Amino acid sequence: MTIKNVFYAQSGGVTSVINASACGLIQTARLHSDKIGTIYAGLNGIIGALKEDIIDTSFESDNDIAALRHTPAGAFGSCRYKLKSLETNRAEYERLIAVFKAHNIGYFFYNGGGDSQDTAYKVSQIGEQMGYSLTCIGIPKTVDNDLPITDNCAGFGSVAKYVAISMREASFDVASMCATSTKVFVMEVMGRHAGWIAAAGALAADENHDIPLIILFPEITFNQTKFLAAIDEKVKYYGYCCIVVSEGLKNSDGQFLSEAGGKDAFGHAQLGGVAPVIANLIKEKLGYKYHWAVADYLQRAARHIASKNDVEQAYAVGKAAVEFALAGKNAVMPTIVRTADSPYQWEIGSIDLKDVANVEKMMPPEFISPDGFGITLACRTYLEPLIAGEDYPPYKNGLPDYVVLKNQLVTKKLSEFNV
Amino acid sequence: MTIKNVFYAQSGGVTSVINASACGLIQTARLHSDKIGTIYAGLNGIIGALKEDIIDTSFESDNDIAALRHTPAGAFGSCRYKLKSLETNRAEYERLIAVFKAHNIGYFFYNGGGDSQDTAYKVSQIGEQMGYSLTCIGIPKTVDNDLPITDNCAGFGSVAKYVAISMREASFDVASMCATSTKVFVMEVMGRHAGWIAAAGALAADENHDIPLIILFPEITFNQTKFLAAIDEKVKYYGYCCIVVSEGLKNSDGQFLSEAGGKDAFGHAQLGGVAPVIANLIKEKLGYKYHWAVADYLQRAARHIASKNDVEQAYAVGKAAVEFALAGKNAVMPTIVRTADSPYQWEIGSIDLKDVANVEKMMPPEFISPDGFGITLACRTYLEPLIAGEDYPPYKNGLPDYVVLKNQLVTKKLSEFNV
Repeated sequence: MTIKNVFYAQSGGVTSVINASACGLIQTARLHSDKIGTIYAGLNGIIGALKEDIIDTSFESDNDIAALRHTPAGAFGSCRYKLKSLETNRAEYERLIAVFKAHNIGYFFYNGGGDSQDTAYKVSQIGEQMGYSLTCIGIPKTVDNDLPITDNCAGFGSVAKYVAISMREASFDVASMCATSTKVFVMEVMGRHAGWIAAAGALAADENHDIPLIILFPEITFNQTKFLAAIDEKVKYYGYCCIVVSEGLKNSDGQFLSEAGGKDAFGHAQLGGVAPVIANLIKEKLGYKYHWAVADYLQRAARHIASKNDVEQAYAVGKAAVEFALAGKNAVMPTIVRTADSPYQWEIGSIDLKDVANVEKMMPPEFISPDGFGITLACRTYLEPLIAGEDYPPYKNGLPDYVVLKNQLVTKKLSEFNV
Repeated sequence: MTIKNVFYAQSGGVTSVINASACGLIQTARLHSDKIGTIYAGLNGIIGALKEDIIDTSFESDNDIAALRHTPAGAFGSCRYKLKSLETNRAEYERLIAVFKAHNIGYFFYNGGGDSQDTAYKVSQIGEQMGYSLTCIGIPKTVDNDLPITDNCAGFGSVAKYVAISMREASFDVASMCATSTKVFVMEVMGRHAGWIAAAGALAADENHDIPLIILFPEITFNQTKFLAAIDEKVKYYGYCCIVVSEGLKNSDGQFLSEAGGKDAFGHAQLGGVAPVIANLIKEKLGYKYHWAVADYLQRAARHIASKNDVEQAYAVGKAAVEFALAGKNAVMPTIVRTADSPYQWEIGSIDLKDVANVEKMMPPEFISPDGFGITLACRTYLEPLIAGEDYPPYKNGLPDYVVLKNQLVTKKLSEFNV
């Protein structure tokens, strides 16, 4: 058996721990140099494969690869680029195979969300059809936590921790100020169509922290009357209220609230952000002084406060991907399997890529409280272990010492290809 | 000499370390029970004194007082309430003295920014005029870092650290995504009329982290043409650009950019936030895909990533306030005196309240780079020690274990007073 090379690519929106998966993968592959050749990575994800912009990770020191474990975002670059269906654009798949062949690549590891798992599955099919022997393994990654089957997604726990901590901290601030100033604080969070990240905001409150919270889930159609009544009740009782609103919140017409707000002076659609829309509504209808925050990239890049369990799982799925490949598995994705809630225990499982592709996992109804503004105990039991533990990066001059790789490209062997 | 009681109050916008000052003050005062009686605190700041809503901190355990050191925001409540001038509203000052007299208060510690130091000064004057013996000590606090004379303000270093880390992390995210997605990231920060917090964003870049950054200071009038040219140049060279914009940024008409943007669909002024205004301008004029964040309270409540030096200084000024009072000083404020840049050394100094009241310290011209979009080496030398060191709070279930005090009120002795 000839020794084949690896091609690894990061895909879609990055997370604070996707590089931990890269670290697990590269460190494990380096241990098996008898079976695995050069470890390549795509510059800017799958586009790197199509354009033959291929990074040779051999130039990175063991120390720098180890530092990926504590470095956020995509060290090799990521991209938002979904390959079309095999029927529509077979040329792209054939190009991928041609590039893989040119660089003797036998292992394709694709680190991403649902779309990427779909792509990994298609690549495994086309490889087979073209008679090119290729092992395709997906590595789960998404802050949105919306992949099916796996108990949770690497990347989610850390953003959940960031949101829970930020909301607890901000609630202390508002509680201090509400006698004469701000009474309502609104924080907007990510999550697209799934309310997992918004749900994590509810963890800010616990038996020792009685914080008035309202969560606005994308799974629940916004009901203005009910919402305003809930806010008013909390402000009257506690003196203040905190709101976590998902970017994907929609009104009864199915419109995103962030888009339904209006036009600016130039006639453009609202500048974006559902938090200011919600805050303004409260001011308008209830007259309460507000503040609002939009965490945006800060939440998914916040490696400084990553969840230890999340970092460990992100590393583990990267490591498992290589182990699966070496064990002869193909067209599979490692999953995280929860075996106990408390004390939390988990292990790595495996599913076929065809079962994960293009399925979105929303918050189940039994995780959302009857009033639609909070989480149930079942949801808390699910979420708490995912944010547990701290995994601080090393610091230098007061700042996290994140690594920047050399990212040295290999010499191209093929003609140009337009993406 | 009869033993007199203490009245401590938190004032204005809270910080992630103002409770560390409270901790330093209360712990030090508790050590001197031979000279200091009960330590009272105002519920919601000075309003607590006026309304005779007085917290008896004797009910708080030593452990809970110690936990204040790692708990953000104002544990006793703060307020935005500026006493009018002595001439305009002498009744309020007389009420203060009456409440102090009723509760045998001989020490007034006021923990706040410029306005509060002004109030502390006035209270010291009126006490003298009314023949009531009162020791008035100010304790500096403001995230804005705009108090004069003191080298820096307790509270600033931690928000500076948060902003620098957040910008470094977000820049890694944008750098990963810029090939196919976001090219410009805008983060809005606090600071009112002073650019200190915005300046801290520039620390995200250093000799190992070549990050394209543009800082928009409130001290520099916004020049749209120059700004857009600078952005475009950086995006063309680096592929992306990050912008830190101060909430206090003004255009050449002296208008805040956050207010100059326009009206929403209901005809209201723009929902607020200068970040979306800047982001939209870039999209409009240069066509670059953007993301923006408004950290708002998250930045000043972020005790989870407080600067160790800041926590130590916040504690030290609280402790020094008591020591000053015991040493017979009056109408003074402890300051932070820098004695060396590298290795950083500092000590506690003292200034008269009359010299600090109502003076705002802006970024000096020599701290802003010639193009107006960055900081100089002198500014970096000034800022770096202030964000140095980490001082992590204890965690429970994945979240910082912040303390909530009992805040038990004493029985009122006087008639009601309307505030």
